[in-house]
Amino acid sequence: MRLQLDRLHAFVVEVFTRLDVLPDHADVTAARLLEADLKGRTGHGIIRVPQYVKRIEGGGINLQPAIEKTRSTAVSCLVDGDNGLGQVVMTLAAETAIEKATESGMAWVGTVRSNHAGAAGVYTDMATRHDLIAVYTAVASANVMPPWGGNERLLGTNPISIAIPAGEEPGFLLDIATTVTSHGSIKVLAQRGDSMPEGWVMDREGNPITDPNQASEGFLMPIGGYKGAGLNMAIGLLAGVLNDAAFGSDVIDHRAVPDQPANTGQAIFVMRPDLFRDLDSFKTDIDRHLKELRDAGEEGAVRIPGHGAAGLEAEQRANGIELPDVLLGQLRDLAQALELDDQLSD
Amino acid sequence: MRLQLDRLHAFVVEVFTRLDVLPDHADVTAARLLEADLKGRTGHGIIRVPQYVKRIEGGGINLQPAIEKTRSTAVSCLVDGDNGLGQVVMTLAAETAIEKATESGMAWVGTVRSNHAGAAGVYTDMATRHDLIAVYTAVASANVMPPWGGNERLLGTNPISIAIPAGEEPGFLLDIATTVTSHGSIKVLAQRGDSMPEGWVMDREGNPITDPNQASEGFLMPIGGYKGAGLNMAIGLLAGVLNDAAFGSDVIDHRAVPDQPANTGQAIFVMRPDLFRDLDSFKTDIDRHLKELRDAGEEGAVRIPGHGAAGLEAEQRANGIELPDVLLGQLRDLAQALELDDQLSD
Repeated sequence: MRLQLDRLHAFVVEVFTRLDVLPDHADVTAARLLEADLKGRTGHGIIRVPQYVKRIEGGGINLQPAIEKTRSTAVSCLVDGDNGLGQVVMTLAAETAIEKATESGMAWVGTVRSNHAGAAGVYTDMATRHDLIAVYTAVASANVMPPWGGNERLLGTNPISIAIPAGEEPGFLLDIATTVTSHGSIKVLAQRGDSMPEGWVMDREGNPITDPNQASEGFLMPIGGYKGAGLNMAIGLLAGVLNDAAFGSDVIDHRAVPDQPANTGQAIFVMRPDLFRDLDSFKTDIDRHLKELRDAGEEGAVRIPGHGAAGLEAEQRANGIELPDVLLGQLRDLAQALELDDQLSD
Repeated sequence: MRLQLDRLHAFVVEVFTRLDVLPDHADVTAARLLEADLKGRTGHGIIRVPQYVKRIEGGGINLQPAIEKTRSTAVSCLVDGDNGLGQVVMTLAAETAIEKATESGMAWVGTVRSNHAGAAGVYTDMATRHDLIAVYTAVASANVMPPWGGNERLLGTNPISIAIPAGEEPGFLLDIATTVTSHGSIKVLAQRGDSMPEGWVMDREGNPITDPNQASEGFLMPIGGYKGAGLNMAIGLLAGVLNDAAFGSDVIDHRAVPDQPANTGQAIFVMRPDLFRDLDSFKTDIDRHLKELRDAGEEGAVRIPGHGAAGLEAEQRANGIELPDVLLGQLRDLAQALELDDQLSD
């Protein structure tokens, strides 16, 4: 079933405000979740609402947070989220980075005492809409794999997004977990009733697990073996430890422990391309290269990060967002439990 | 055979000055190449001297470059290398980034009209010695793979290094190509007479190539499939296009075309950790996490980026650098061709 963006947005806002989330926090959270759906980052979209509700009802989220910009310089800031909703904390962090980078050329803004903030690319995309370059990283909200060579879960799916503005072309927008897969993607497969490819999850003996419902028993695998494991670790140190946020054994599984603050850390770096060359010539040249890359294979075969998402976003903004039946059922159950009007039926 | 660092340094300097490289440029280039060897980045060490000599003799390198800092701001700079040796251009870029970051909190310095600059980790390590965080990326000096889904070589091994200072522990130092392997590593295998594992290089039909001497007939593979391919592309756009340096079809193979400028682009980002928390508490906490990660497996089993290299560097500084016979033979042939005294015999 397809539902229009406005209707889904209103629904998510109503769910959160019914749970005493501040109206503007509910609005921002709904917007960021649905932007993920629009871009096809389904695993970080509206599918997360029931899980957020569980943490809110469990007392794991501060609904009246005093979110504060601390340690502010011309090029940096640490946003203390006071355990507010992650989308709200990260939106402030991204806006702050955009503002400072516009003024000073570049800025790095970290977060501490934040929460799961959804799709990485949603925040870097905020910067490219201002013709800025952006890099976002986060400590994921659960540990899913050991360091390379180890056997104790200390690392998450730690994502990275890199966004670069273009001219006529859709911008370049990379948004990846540094693991072969993520719990978001596994959740989508589980809801569809599909199995996982081999190589996504291994058990302790190194055998593949293919049932998405058993994924939590195994270890996720990093991209590129020790290389991706190292990149994952670097992200954890920079988005977590640098901000005095959780990393390693300090990370709680935010789904399994709904009553505890997660102290999630994120970081966003934003930079003006015109520090290095004239903005128009930069964008024109990015266009030229993106076209060349796209033409280096059969029509439609080459994958340019962000280009598929841009097409999907335009299409879904026009025609509505397709929700799988399982998710729709969960959202309706949620509406019923919260005694909301059924807004999701035809 | 093992040779002391000083002796190898003097030898490399003599090779380059004999070819009319400026003495301080020869000195810096020798230092950066041997730092790669010390850290075990053999593929970017002294093994590259014959290839650099070929480009110098071929006229592909400007031996009297007017290297210039352009577009300088408090947080950024573009170093125009005027086609000088890459190590010289990148060393100036790294020093400039360190200086500006120390002053302003962070800095991003790009290069244009540079050349192959060797091991990525050598430059980020310069920053961590000042207790700074650093990220280095470069457009590799030859195209070795298509974009994901394509069949035309437009992307190189585009490396990334991320370095984070620690306290008592050796610093974290990631230094990876975004391909499963690199030409440096393949060159080392070829010299040893070893074959390549399957999955490093594929032919156009998707079959593995395992003979390192035939690697150039195939495509290198990105780490993590489309994810690594996207990261590789992002690096190329940020280290190349942003600086108006070569990317995509503008990249020449610097080994195959020794008489043409390569217009190589690199970028280094440097940042003060004390923007976000007290330096000592940061370093103490990094130590704690690195220890925890190391203890998450059997003794010696967990791979922490930079820790193996730190041990190897200390050992080789004390006992000399081990050179394989093939390389030693090449260097002696080179000495003979340049009519240098034989400094590499016992």
